[in-house]
Amino acid sequence: MEPLIDRREVRFFSGQSNKPLAVGIANYLGVPLDETIFQRFTNDNLRIQLCASVRGRKVYLVQSLTPPVSDHLLELLMMLDIARSAAADEIHAVIPYFSYARSDKKDAPRISITARLIADLLATAGATHVMTMQLHSPQVHGFFSVPTDPLTARGLFVEYLRERVDPESTVVVAPDAGIAKSAARFASLIHCPVAVASKKRISDTRVAVGEALEKQVAGFESAIVYDDEIATGGSMHEICQVLVKCGVKRIRLVCTHGLFLGQARERLGGIPEIEEIVMTDTVHVPDERRLPNMTILSVAEIFGEAIRRNYHHQSIGSLFTFWDNGG
Amino acid sequence: MEPLIDRREVRFFSGQSNKPLAVGIANYLGVPLDETIFQRFTNDNLRIQLCASVRGRKVYLVQSLTPPVSDHLLELLMMLDIARSAAADEIHAVIPYFSYARSDKKDAPRISITARLIADLLATAGATHVMTMQLHSPQVHGFFSVPTDPLTARGLFVEYLRERVDPESTVVVAPDAGIAKSAARFASLIHCPVAVASKKRISDTRVAVGEALEKQVAGFESAIVYDDEIATGGSMHEICQVLVKCGVKRIRLVCTHGLFLGQARERLGGIPEIEEIVMTDTVHVPDERRLPNMTILSVAEIFGEAIRRNYHHQSIGSLFTFWDNGG
Amino acid sequence: MEPLIDRREVRFFSGQSNKPLAVGIANYLGVPLDETIFQRFTNDNLRIQLCASVRGRKVYLVQSLTPPVSDHLLELLMMLDIARSAAADEIHAVIPYFSYARSDKKDAPRISITARLIADLLATAGATHVMTMQLHSPQVHGFFSVPTDPLTARGLFVEYLRERVDPESTVVVAPDAGIAKSAARFASLIHCPVAVASKKRISDTRVAVGEALEKQVAGFESAIVYDDEIATGGSMHEICQVLVKCGVKRIRLVCTHGLFLGQARERLGGIPEIEEIVMTDTVHVPDERRLPNMTILSVAEIFGEAIRRNYHHQSIGSLFTFWDNGG
Amino acid sequence: MEPLIDRREVRFFSGQSNKPLAVGIANYLGVPLDETIFQRFTNDNLRIQLCASVRGRKVYLVQSLTPPVSDHLLELLMMLDIARSAAADEIHAVIPYFSYARSDKKDAPRISITARLIADLLATAGATHVMTMQLHSPQVHGFFSVPTDPLTARGLFVEYLRERVDPESTVVVAPDAGIAKSAARFASLIHCPVAVASKKRISDTRVAVGEALEKQVAGFESAIVYDDEIATGGSMHEICQVLVKCGVKRIRLVCTHGLFLGQARERLGGIPEIEEIVMTDTVHVPDERRLPNMTILSVAEIFGEAIRRNYHHQSIGSLFTFWDNGG
Amino acid sequence: MEPLIDRREVRFFSGQSNKPLAVGIANYLGVPLDETIFQRFTNDNLRIQLCASVRGRKVYLVQSLTPPVSDHLLELLMMLDIARSAAADEIHAVIPYFSYARSDKKDAPRISITARLIADLLATAGATHVMTMQLHSPQVHGFFSVPTDPLTARGLFVEYLRERVDPESTVVVAPDAGIAKSAARFASLIHCPVAVASKKRISDTRVAVGEALEKQVAGFESAIVYDDEIATGGSMHEICQVLVKCGVKRIRLVCTHGLFLGQARERLGGIPEIEEIVMTDTVHVPDERRLPNMTILSVAEIFGEAIRRNYHHQSIGSLFTFWDNGG
Amino acid sequence: MEPLIDRREVRFFSGQSNKPLAVGIANYLGVPLDETIFQRFTNDNLRIQLCASVRGRKVYLVQSLTPPVSDHLLELLMMLDIARSAAADEIHAVIPYFSYARSDKKDAPRISITARLIADLLATAGATHVMTMQLHSPQVHGFFSVPTDPLTARGLFVEYLRERVDPESTVVVAPDAGIAKSAARFASLIHCPVAVASKKRISDTRVAVGEALEKQVAGFESAIVYDDEIATGGSMHEICQVLVKCGVKRIRLVCTHGLFLGQARERLGGIPEIEEIVMTDTVHVPDERRLPNMTILSVAEIFGEAIRRNYHHQSIGSLFTFWDNGG
Repeated sequence: MEPLIDRREVRFFSGQSNKPLAVGIANYLGVPLDETIFQRFTNDNLRIQLCASVRGRKVYLVQSLTPPVSDHLLELLMMLDIARSAAADEIHAVIPYFSYARSDKKDAPRISITARLIADLLATAGATHVMTMQLHSPQVHGFFSVPTDPLTARGLFVEYLRERVDPESTVVVAPDAGIAKSAARFASLIHCPVAVASKKRISDTRVAVGEALEKQVAGFESAIVYDDEIATGGSMHEICQVLVKCGVKRIRLVCTHGLFLGQARERLGGIPEIEEIVMTDTVHVPDERRLPNMTILSVAEIFGEAIRRNYHHQSIGSLFTFWDNGG
Repeated sequence: MEPLIDRREVRFFSGQSNKPLAVGIANYLGVPLDETIFQRFTNDNLRIQLCASVRGRKVYLVQSLTPPVSDHLLELLMMLDIARSAAADEIHAVIPYFSYARSDKKDAPRISITARLIADLLATAGATHVMTMQLHSPQVHGFFSVPTDPLTARGLFVEYLRERVDPESTVVVAPDAGIAKSAARFASLIHCPVAVASKKRISDTRVAVGEALEKQVAGFESAIVYDDEIATGGSMHEICQVLVKCGVKRIRLVCTHGLFLGQARERLGGIPEIEEIVMTDTVHVPDERRLPNMTILSVAEIFGEAIRRNYHHQSIGSLFTFWDNGG
Repeated sequence: MEPLIDRREVRFFSGQSNKPLAVGIANYLGVPLDETIFQRFTNDNLRIQLCASVRGRKVYLVQSLTPPVSDHLLELLMMLDIARSAAADEIHAVIPYFSYARSDKKDAPRISITARLIADLLATAGATHVMTMQLHSPQVHGFFSVPTDPLTARGLFVEYLRERVDPESTVVVAPDAGIAKSAARFASLIHCPVAVASKKRISDTRVAVGEALEKQVAGFESAIVYDDEIATGGSMHEICQVLVKCGVKRIRLVCTHGLFLGQARERLGGIPEIEEIVMTDTVHVPDERRLPNMTILSVAEIFGEAIRRNYHHQSIGSLFTFWDNGG
Repeated sequence: MEPLIDRREVRFFSGQSNKPLAVGIANYLGVPLDETIFQRFTNDNLRIQLCASVRGRKVYLVQSLTPPVSDHLLELLMMLDIARSAAADEIHAVIPYFSYARSDKKDAPRISITARLIADLLATAGATHVMTMQLHSPQVHGFFSVPTDPLTARGLFVEYLRERVDPESTVVVAPDAGIAKSAARFASLIHCPVAVASKKRISDTRVAVGEALEKQVAGFESAIVYDDEIATGGSMHEICQVLVKCGVKRIRLVCTHGLFLGQARERLGGIPEIEEIVMTDTVHVPDERRLPNMTILSVAEIFGEAIRRNYHHQSIGSLFTFWDNGG
Repeated sequence: MEPLIDRREVRFFSGQSNKPLAVGIANYLGVPLDETIFQRFTNDNLRIQLCASVRGRKVYLVQSLTPPVSDHLLELLMMLDIARSAAADEIHAVIPYFSYARSDKKDAPRISITARLIADLLATAGATHVMTMQLHSPQVHGFFSVPTDPLTARGLFVEYLRERVDPESTVVVAPDAGIAKSAARFASLIHCPVAVASKKRISDTRVAVGEALEKQVAGFESAIVYDDEIATGGSMHEICQVLVKCGVKRIRLVCTHGLFLGQARERLGGIPEIEEIVMTDTVHVPDERRLPNMTILSVAEIFGEAIRRNYHHQSIGSLFTFWDNGG
Repeated sequence: MEPLIDRREVRFFSGQSNKPLAVGIANYLGVPLDETIFQRFTNDNLRIQLCASVRGRKVYLVQSLTPPVSDHLLELLMMLDIARSAAADEIHAVIPYFSYARSDKKDAPRISITARLIADLLATAGATHVMTMQLHSPQVHGFFSVPTDPLTARGLFVEYLRERVDPESTVVVAPDAGIAKSAARFASLIHCPVAVASKKRISDTRVAVGEALEKQVAGFESAIVYDDEIATGGSMHEICQVLVKCGVKRIRLVCTHGLFLGQARERLGGIPEIEEIVMTDTVHVPDERRLPNMTILSVAEIFGEAIRRNYHHQSIGSLFTFWDNGG
């Protein structure tokens, strides 16, 4: 099969966070994944070597900010620096999971809006373009000084679920106000209504919130809880308990970034009503942390296609996340 | 009365957008407002002169981005540039109303995240510190590369309304999800429950939303609609109509930035249930655009106190907006 | 006709200041003018959308800084920002009339050298190259940190006037010392002598100046007053009165930027000796502000040809303004 | 005598171009000139050491760009770099003669607007403020991105000449149009008329120019030729010849920057009508290049006073050059 | 005791790498160590809060880049960002052990000169000044764009060892050419001769090298091996074996940065001739990794004194590392 | 012969320091050397004009920093500025001899790490890529913020000497520790042993050093002294005297940068045991400073080939200097 981009003009490297996804993207494009050597000096310093000449080429570096986040971030910064100082023409940081997007505001004095800091560090290290997916809030896009494409996996979920969901009996649940618009847009695409839970952290209003959600989901047999990220599964667990209490019989969890850290496997594996967990591979979940009811949809084609279009100067169009209408 | 800051060390100038507020801040601090000359050349170029030496001084420039926004923005950029090139030591852009905070994300292809652009332009022109109030979303804070203090007028509203509101019969209404947290925090401070309306733009879900709001406000005699900004009053008008329909008898509108442009005066003046419109003076509303039931609380003291604390290297503390808990 | 540049590689947008000229440039090049949507939010914020993908392309943005200057400047800055953040490859700001070139020095304390400020703002917003015409002084070129081509319309004027002027009876008049060199160069190209008036603002020497001009133009039947810009026509009016008093019978006004604001139409329309006003279309003058004796030469071909040569990496050569010899 | 500035807070160093002036400025301020060691390695590299700690201090570096210009420029850049990297608080580049101000525009393709380049290099090396004198054109001010004070020696000349000049019989001559406004302002301060010569380089109009000047100076017994700089004295020589031919008996040359390079001494020493050459010490002229009729007025007090005012955050006011009115 | 610096003007925070040293420095200065809260979100993102207002203050952040290096680096970058965005006046990054100084050159294609990258990241995050100790090579100083003070612990070692060493029977051994000058300077201060071993990595010359060292140390009873860093102790172990073989009876190891990672404790604990390991506390070694013959000299006073002098604008003088003479 | 790069896409200019080498590089590539005009204004300002359009092209500027270093540096900065402001696409500064690489650390207080300063000035002036040769220390590479290729001439020397040297009787001598690794690598390639002299400047250890060298070279008939640079030949002279004293009969000097300034010719010409001086043409030595036993190997092909590979996006590979293994 002919490659979708000219392999003489590109280099494609992966950090250590999610090599299977990097391989998937490279395969979609029909180019090889170039070798990278990762070492650690005795004093814990990282040493990284890119094993193919990048001079004058378009370089793609794939790295998700999964645990250990600091190491993976520094790997990415060093890979950017190598490409920059070795005279690459374009340097694309492909960050399927940008964990620090969640640190996007000051909710206490003297903390860091770390998402902005990281955006600046990426530019300092040499990134000329960033591709990422499902940022926690749309404004994070504005933190980047280089052109940035926040992609969406919503199309994947819609395609997968459209045939599997009964719009009559199913409600889409947004776990908090922040994801509400995005959930509403998703719900409309699969022709379901949407319900919004309020954030659990406002302790003095939590009961009312629970009640509000209860009213909204009353009468539905089936629910799809739609979120951007599952880390340890705490809030998902709480939402599911409310849903079960309200009589929901079948629950699907849908999320872009399935980290499944800490107690997530136990927590969510322990609720029998959860019939399926649909997520993507922006985060690589090793077998031992997986659950049998997980369905993992690969975003390799989405990133690959976005790279292809960018390479050929085409609009990324529908792959891109536009926010106001529920992106 | 002794000035709160050393007048030999500061200069205090106002753009043309809101001179009364600038005077109020200067008065609070006990320093004079320094003269600025505004002219327009025959070709429509602006010419601005600051009429007091800024060399080595801490310079405060007060300008709200009210209509004509572009002129007021350019005035501010020129004033910053003058202070910078005339060797000011610190240059504080005090922007009580930062209109472009609303342009904080890409909700369509090839538009500008103008809030980030303006933040960058302010830095280029010479701002070393920004003070503003009630940004449309908390993430906009992260657009600024210079230290920025987003202040809040919530304390003013709480103080004013605490004695005037009956918590038993009153519900606080957030006009859309974006303001929900902030409204909830406000509501808890005046011991009222909160209701959240969904945004009207999602046309296919609007009816449901209306219903959702109706359920939440049913039974309340009195409502406080809490928002950050009233421009032409369109969405306020719509919310009020729903409230009236649900049996609410007395409505208060509370907003930080009261622009009252276009039809706002007519629209909101035509609803007799609106007994009071409480807003601040971040935007200067001339007499002819005012309504008799407007109460305008001045933020002069808030900005003045923040400037005083900043000048004396004290924490701005409670004046500052922290977001997660409803700021 | 085959386009002069590859239309797949370029995008061509116009701001709202001078769309006819943008169309003319695009026509010369054989490419379409891409659509741009201009809107204003209720709070007077601008909203702009470029309606064709710019990814990886060479983008040309045409905008003259005509009144309302601040709006047109902000439009341009936003268009630059859109192109930059949407990953354009090259971003060319084509500014036929750069009004702020006149604010090029400090003639009073604490004013802004606004031409430098604007040059910096354009770079911050994303311009990678600037094209402009007939800057007020040659040094303004040095304010730009990105490559900048100041073009000249002198060739147009020479070509148009060469056949229409009698070198024996005609003198070229420079209205002040700043334009003297440029006028001398123009005069030599049409084989006429040159006279220089002194600036009227130096009040204590004004009479002498008038006298000096009178001596220089005595005996000529015909005069060409050559300037870079006519705004409200004040100084042109004054010069013409002196010329008429000295016995000049026929006057031509030649200027690059014909703004014709305020009283210009009345002032200059009221002097019967002005037989022709020759100017270019860097500024769009609507019909109602035109005079019957205006001849408008289009610079579309000059900008188009400069763009073509730049696109094909050819020297812009004779289109460019070199100063010392009268450019 | 008490120093005018706190000597514990400042450091004062001189490059090798004009140490006497640096001493003069330091004396005015009552502070010592700190030692600097200049060496050259065997490969011609410069080595410079500042011999007093600059940490946290306000550092003044005095250097004129006199021949050898490149060495003196590099000296200055290295001294700036030393101050910056050794943690100075403020770094003031005091450049009494900024030779490259003359390279302020493109009068041919592919040359450098070197004045802008040098301004950028100074900022890169660490200058936080620039002080200079009598820039060749007012726009050069706008080339600097750091606060810059272009001072003027006009006051010195006026004070010195007021008593020595007979306004009835004396004309001030500006050698070309570029200096005309400045000369006019000077002339008005000593109550003399002004005449303007045209630049000799426009060869096809040179005769006319000579004639024009002849008419303007006819009848005056005495002339003051006023320019910013005398290098090899070529154009001064030519002007003087015209003046003598027109019957002028006594000539004074007045210029800020007296370089007196090449044939200057012989050329101007050979015209007996030149009774005095009045200039400043921005450029250090060693005894062997001096003429007996030279009067050198020191600018030490002007720079010293400007430094004092800047130090104490006072307006530099009348020391500053404002242009439009003849600065 | 009165503090050495004004505690109202400074803030003093420590990262998690070496809190005992930070406490020591703060104690020397007589100021409290301000509280910092370190948390980790469920997705492994760091969250850091500085618990004292930094507005307008001089902020000192102490962090050694010890394992886990990436986490400690990111902590430091976030703390810098917090101080910067919260309007600190000065931000001093105090990095006693800058591990990445070792990555100072390209010894293979497409690797990162990570020391330069980190220097740039520190500046991006907000550092205005860096203090560090015993950089691996003197040139690393030039990687920093902000003022940087590389301090030395040599004085500590000299003071401690002067009384304990017999210059007649002792040789100082430099483990490779890179440390040779520094070791020679140290040796001369304690009046001992110096021997230089060649680096073991050049395998084809290793035997000769061993021989060379053997010749140089032959006849000495006692040796001091002097290096900048001991990580896993590999090369130290090898050198010691050669020394023992050559008849050296008593060995002292002297190093600035004692990491003692991996097998270091076992390797060096297993050589009975090593009578003492003298090192500093730039790296915190927990009790379980220590050996009984370790002597740890604290650098708290050196950093404290350098901070005090910097604060009072005094020269850091003898604390600083000057290289050519053996620093 | 077909050129190795497309001559329509490149421009190739030379400064005044080493035009023969520039011609050689251009010849290797099969492209013409484009004309450059160098002038000096009467006030010693430089004026430079590039005589071929650079718009959109890859521009190569060749300049060695040989005496007069400051002039040659400023020439290069101006040429970069011209290329940048005339819209070149890529700007390659080819600096065969970068003299200031020797100023790479602070060996005294308040001196400049001038190599870093120059690196920053080159970037400010417009360099997008730097090519240079045999930097004095490998870390200098890290001073550059743009991609930089430090090339090596070692291959030339090996090829030339392999047939001419008897490995049995010859020792390679490194004049000081800094060059030791590089010399060792070179020695191994021609199968000779290596000896290292210690630097003469440490006066109190000089005698011992001499002894150390004597031991290492005892018994060899022939020696090759290998260094990066010969300026006035002082240390080479000293080393040679030691060698002769030890019985070495034939000496070859090998160095990359042969400046031969001051007494170099006399010093080294006066030692009859020096049978050959092998150096490159990174520095142009005019005939009158040459010695009859000089062999000058041209690096034109190395630079030409590196440019060719860079142009075609190939790895520079073996031309590049990798340091740890003796580069």
